[in-house]
Amino acid sequence: MSGEKSLKVALLGCGTVGAQVARILIEDGGALAARSGASLELTGIAVRNLEAKRDVQLDAKLFTLDAEALIDSADVVIELLGGMEPAGAYIERALARGASVITGNKALIAARGAALNAVAASTGAQLRYEAAVAGAIPILRPIADSLAGDHINKVMGIVNGTTNFILDAMDSTGAAFDDVLAEAQALGYAEADPTADVGGLDAAAKAAILASLAFHTTVSSDQVHTEGITEVSAADVTAAAAAGYVIKLLAIAEKLEAGISVRVYPSLIKRDHPLASVRGAFNAVFVEAENAGDLMFYGAGAGGNPTASAVMGDVVAVARQLSAGAPLPHGSADSAAQLIDFSAISTRYWIGLTVFDEPGVLARIAAIFGEHGVSIESMNQQAALGDGPAALRILTHRGTEAALASTVAALKALDAVDTVLSVMRVEGN
Amino acid sequence: MSGEKSLKVALLGCGTVGAQVARILIEDGGALAARSGASLELTGIAVRNLEAKRDVQLDAKLFTLDAEALIDSADVVIELLGGMEPAGAYIERALARGASVITGNKALIAARGAALNAVAASTGAQLRYEAAVAGAIPILRPIADSLAGDHINKVMGIVNGTTNFILDAMDSTGAAFDDVLAEAQALGYAEADPTADVGGLDAAAKAAILASLAFHTTVSSDQVHTEGITEVSAADVTAAAAAGYVIKLLAIAEKLEAGISVRVYPSLIKRDHPLASVRGAFNAVFVEAENAGDLMFYGAGAGGNPTASAVMGDVVAVARQLSAGAPLPHGSADSAAQLIDFSAISTRYWIGLTVFDEPGVLARIAAIFGEHGVSIESMNQQAALGDGPAALRILTHRGTEAALASTVAALKALDAVDTVLSVMRVEGN
Repeated sequence: MSGEKSLKVALLGCGTVGAQVARILIEDGGALAARSGASLELTGIAVRNLEAKRDVQLDAKLFTLDAEALIDSADVVIELLGGMEPAGAYIERALARGASVITGNKALIAARGAALNAVAASTGAQLRYEAAVAGAIPILRPIADSLAGDHINKVMGIVNGTTNFILDAMDSTGAAFDDVLAEAQALGYAEADPTADVGGLDAAAKAAILASLAFHTTVSSDQVHTEGITEVSAADVTAAAAAGYVIKLLAIAEKLEAGISVRVYPSLIKRDHPLASVRGAFNAVFVEAENAGDLMFYGAGAGGNPTASAVMGDVVAVARQLSAGAPLPHGSADSAAQLIDFSAISTRYWIGLTVFDEPGVLARIAAIFGEHGVSIESMNQQAALGDGPAALRILTHRGTEAALASTVAALKALDAVDTVLSVMRVEGN
Repeated sequence: MSGEKSLKVALLGCGTVGAQVARILIEDGGALAARSGASLELTGIAVRNLEAKRDVQLDAKLFTLDAEALIDSADVVIELLGGMEPAGAYIERALARGASVITGNKALIAARGAALNAVAASTGAQLRYEAAVAGAIPILRPIADSLAGDHINKVMGIVNGTTNFILDAMDSTGAAFDDVLAEAQALGYAEADPTADVGGLDAAAKAAILASLAFHTTVSSDQVHTEGITEVSAADVTAAAAAGYVIKLLAIAEKLEAGISVRVYPSLIKRDHPLASVRGAFNAVFVEAENAGDLMFYGAGAGGNPTASAVMGDVVAVARQLSAGAPLPHGSADSAAQLIDFSAISTRYWIGLTVFDEPGVLARIAAIFGEHGVSIESMNQQAALGDGPAALRILTHRGTEAALASTVAALKALDAVDTVLSVMRVEGN
């Protein structure tokens, strides 16, 4: 194309994803220009240590330690440093001077997305972050754009590859959490410090972003009820499998009459639910919309190339808009999120107990559920081993978290109950 | 919002989808304005017969027989008449005067999309047709936008709900095609004249659209190799199931070294492939991209509300762009599609034969495959019933369509072969 616009692109960070983004920008210039109507010139890559970049097949002259100077001469800034600072300050600096920003920084967007969007709106810059949720899967744009003429009622996703890898391996091998985690670390599917993943914090950031976009509001990570998978036992997984369920860590954003609920926890879902078949480190997001009905988006949730694909989709979108010359109107949040207290959320529960096998014990346990307004769907007693306590798994109909909590407290106080092994929710219809 | 743009929206057609689109435009005006930055005014609904619209809960004054007058005063035209004419003339008329058009007309876009895009490009109008492929599933925009910075190698989809309903019912009940088709017609999943669905023509139009967008080129329906499902027998479905496969009608667009292949045929896929679990009338599209890897998009492929959701997503996108004041650059096809002749396509095959159970017959059959360069992966002989011929199912490694055709011709000429029952391809790895 002759006479096309040329855009200066600054890259911040050159890790697994950044190196792939740099490669694509350099190798694929022609196709990117044809797609976006603008030629994209990678003007530099800001890194924290020039020595560390020797193994990357890129021109050494591209690297710089001066991120701010690079930002100040760019039309488009791609932030792939991760973490809160200096990433946040860099993004704000770019947006404030009218440069558009693409980032995959879920923690930052979940914490400060609304403030950064406001800066972008004030200068007409664009801020895009498709890579922040579910890696390569196009999910934020379908929610924000394709479903813009519909009403989303619920988003429920497997958005953390590490925990799905662990739960899937526990399901298929029967192994214990600690053993599978060690294996996942050896294979590179889990980090040396896996807290953010197995504790559900990574999924919570993604849940906050999904909720904000799906419901046109602002939800931050600290508003998400978050439970991780560290307490999920091999016995839970096996008993769930026997009952026709699989345990997945779900990020759920739901619009209810009283407001919005955003939560992350390990949950049982039926084996025939589309999310149940998501294996290994893959991600998938299930969306229920008023008119569209049930939709699912599936793909790789992490990795250098998949995440780079999402970043580059955003780069082309930004470049198209810049080459058209007029920014799209900035969508604004309709209002502050009306978040429902977690205790008011109602789901089905699956409770594992060990009980002393004495006459009338089942009746007494059933009575406790009834007294707290929680109705039992099924009770499954496994044979007691010798004289020890027998294992009992109880599936309930819908009840509130508050009712469930008081039921569990009463069960624990019952003499006939040895231990409450696990309390888990059941999602999906 | 004060001072926002107001856009005149003309609706052509008020069938199942049109009536829902009209309802949403009227009921949801506030949310649509907030999403798009423009208020949307439904100025009229062009129909062919005013009497037929009495049952729709819409103001009678909206209806008109004069589609052209309606188009000539509109900013945005939504075409939901279907068929080639007058829909094509109406769309061209709208685009020529600079009005943007949203349509769900797959047959028209597959046949004349390139010409209509050229008219749109000449006036700066937008032409969008997300609803034309896979109903509610956001698939065209993810392909054209989210994956714009990637390279798509293959798109493989279940894009026709009627045929998936039929094949799924055959798979779960063992019933014959004719019986299931009659049931599907009774349930409203198949039309009285099911030719376009069961003959693969509907899927071929969608395959042409997917190929054009995925490969930045122009492919029309008549360039798609098309086979329907009318020849799929209950015995095929049962034997496939026994071997761990399920039969699906697949629309495939593939980029190979020599060019592009676009084809529709019933194919075996492994039960653990994500497309295998797509049940009933649902649709799903599997995308393989160079960087993103494997992605899948799943949802309702038809129906008034789901299709209306896709139409409304396009309406909001058009309105956003119009309220921004500057059109996005029109993507142009990179070049005419270099289509590969179907005979050069290479897949795995699954061949069903009945053979006379005499000494040496398997060796002679195996030799025929070898002579034509087709390598056998497995052979499965079912016991002969009494003195009659025995059924044989042969799964091959990859071979070309040409080699397969000559193999089948030679098999038919062999005395020991009673009948070639079926020849089917196997897709997925």
